[in-house]
Amino acid sequence: MSTAPASVAVLGLGSLGTALADAFLAAGHRVTVWNRTAAKADGPVARGAARAASPGDAAEAAGLIVVCVLDYRAATLLVEEAGPRLKGRTVVNVTNGSPGEARVLAERVAALGAEYLDGGVMAVPAMIGGPEALVLYSGPEEAFARWSGVLEAPARPVHLGTDPGLAPLADLALLSGMYGMFGGFFQAAALVRSAGLPVAGFTEDLLLPWLRAIGGILPGMAAKVDSGDYSATGSTLAMQVSHDSIGDVSRAQGVSTELFAPVFELMRRGVAAGYGDGDMAAVVELLGRRSASRAG
Amino acid sequence: MSTAPASVAVLGLGSLGTALADAFLAAGHRVTVWNRTAAKADGPVARGAARAASPGDAAEAAGLIVVCVLDYRAATLLVEEAGPRLKGRTVVNVTNGSPGEARVLAERVAALGAEYLDGGVMAVPAMIGGPEALVLYSGPEEAFARWSGVLEAPARPVHLGTDPGLAPLADLALLSGMYGMFGGFFQAAALVRSAGLPVAGFTEDLLLPWLRAIGGILPGMAAKVDSGDYSATGSTLAMQVSHDSIGDVSRAQGVSTELFAPVFELMRRGVAAGYGDGDMAAVVELLGRRSASRAG
Ligand SMILES: NC(=O)c1ccc[n+]([C@@H]2O[C@H](COP(=O)([O-])OP(=O)(O)OC[C@H]3O[C@@H](n4cnc5c(N)ncnc54)[C@H](OP(=O)(O)O)[C@@H]3O)[C@@H](O)[C@H]2O)c1
Ligand SMILES: NC(=O)c1ccc[n+]([C@@H]2O[C@H](COP(=O)([O-])OP(=O)(O)OC[C@H]3O[C@@H](n4cnc5c(N)ncnc54)[C@H](OP(=O)(O)O)[C@@H]3O)[C@@H](O)[C@H]2O)c1
Repeated sequence: MSTAPASVAVLGLGSLGTALADAFLAAGHRVTVWNRTAAKADGPVARGAARAASPGDAAEAAGLIVVCVLDYRAATLLVEEAGPRLKGRTVVNVTNGSPGEARVLAERVAALGAEYLDGGVMAVPAMIGGPEALVLYSGPEEAFARWSGVLEAPARPVHLGTDPGLAPLADLALLSGMYGMFGGFFQAAALVRSAGLPVAGFTEDLLLPWLRAIGGILPGMAAKVDSGDYSATGSTLAMQVSHDSIGDVSRAQGVSTELFAPVFELMRRGVAAGYGDGDMAAVVELLGRRSASRAG
Repeated sequence: MSTAPASVAVLGLGSLGTALADAFLAAGHRVTVWNRTAAKADGPVARGAARAASPGDAAEAAGLIVVCVLDYRAATLLVEEAGPRLKGRTVVNVTNGSPGEARVLAERVAALGAEYLDGGVMAVPAMIGGPEALVLYSGPEEAFARWSGVLEAPARPVHLGTDPGLAPLADLALLSGMYGMFGGFFQAAALVRSAGLPVAGFTEDLLLPWLRAIGGILPGMAAKVDSGDYSATGSTLAMQVSHDSIGDVSRAQGVSTELFAPVFELMRRGVAAGYGDGDMAAVVELLGRRSASRAG
């Protein structure tokens, strides 16, 4: 999708900030850059960006100000340095942090007369500008609507809601899903290599297609979590824990069960809690409570 | 792929056995069926299968004998009942069990003068005959080569090696990978609903595409496990555990960390074991040992 050229400032030119600046340049926007260590601006400047001498100068040159630094402490320093020069502008902070940090910074930016969007970048720098990159945003609806065309340059933008804490929360939720998948891979890899099978062929030919196929049942489980109706459509939670074949074979192979056992234990507690005849998605009830309130 | 019509017997017509029999019928093979509770044969017989009065009668009518019952105890009963009438035939047992059980039954079948292939069905019955169904086989190369064209009817057949224990081992490894992914989903679902976000939209629009994209790094990790060279190409293991944002935010949201903490703890032990500068795939070394020996 193309959009009218806009003035974008990028504050922070580490590996991610540089990739973002380059993506805005490639999309034809007017880009102003600043980085604490000035030399890191040389690349983007050589590719067409303007160099600013301070965060405030960069902010004044742009309508959209992207902040991409180490942590919220650094992001807050930049916001304070630019101070009233942010007025009337939109700050998009893609620095990683917690929902609480996002809300505090959002209030500070609002007090300076600017809009604040928080962003969670679901991509490594090499993926920026490519088809699989995704950035989660949270903050005022209007701010997102105004800038979403420009924000499409680095990655598919998704708006989650007005609470600025939602983007960092969903970012961490996606990362926790990733670590679960990685944990499953570690367990599977340890098992197959304990039997002398090459892990690479197993992973590419069998594990990835299998995870892709079986991942198709996650939306159905998710719908059960939302509705609270855990009626089993396929196999029941009790069937999943009727025997512990993975644990038994892992032990026989001398492979630790430390990653699998907690999932199995949780499912067993689900049966004990009365969900045995239901879908295994019911175990989410044992992990925490539903809330209509904002991210904490 | 099409293959010459063959004579196939299916012993055991539970939900999976019935789907297998139907897939062989649909592919044009001559199918003979038997089930302990005879009425369950009515469906396949109505769809063109021949009914056998005993496992031995079924075996005699076919070159390939597919066994699909509750467990190895039941599978062994059927093999003993058919006894010498299995001679010269190939038994494909897709009943779930352990590598050790598969090896014991393989020896018994060989003693009866028949070939034995073990099968691990990576599909629910509804997927049988569809593009994503997969069956892992292990046992004699020649037996698999002879029957692979017929075995394509229900699902993509993959041969893992001659040790009959390999199919059940790889089956359980794939399941452990699946439970890891499910555990990650449970954690992610608990986090997003703690913030009042619908889980279904999150799962379909964000989590699945994210897991699909990030799953692309698993083959690279697998290659490191095979080679034992854990040089980091992307971020290091130490970077992954430099802070525990997922744990911190889970606690702040009142969400249990029981599924994520074991992955985090393992990664921390990986750093303590000297793998901090390497790729996180190194944690597989802490789960178990490489072996050139057969599945246990
Ligand atoms: N890289 C990724 O794959 C990725 C993906 C998603 C999210 N993120 C998040 O994006 C942010 C940036 O990541 P990155 O990979 O670009 O990091 P990076 O390459 O390490 O760069 C860090 C940046 O922060 C700046 N910085 C640090 N402390 C500062 C301070 N006190 N004042 C001003 N600037 C300061 C650095 O400036 P100097 O050059 O002067 O040191 C540098 O520009 C982090 O929050 C990270 O978690 C990264
Ligand atoms: N369903 C799946 O999604 C799936 C996927 C992969 C693997 N598997 C494995 O495939 C096997 C069969 O699964 P299924 O879903 O078809 O099970 P099922 O629907 O419960 O059917 C069980 C079958 O086993 C037979 N059986 C049980 N005990 C027996 C005995 N002592 N002697 C003779 N027959 C006996 C039953 O006969 P009666 O009708 O007389 O009771 C029935 O035909 C299991 O090992 C399962 O783990 C299943």
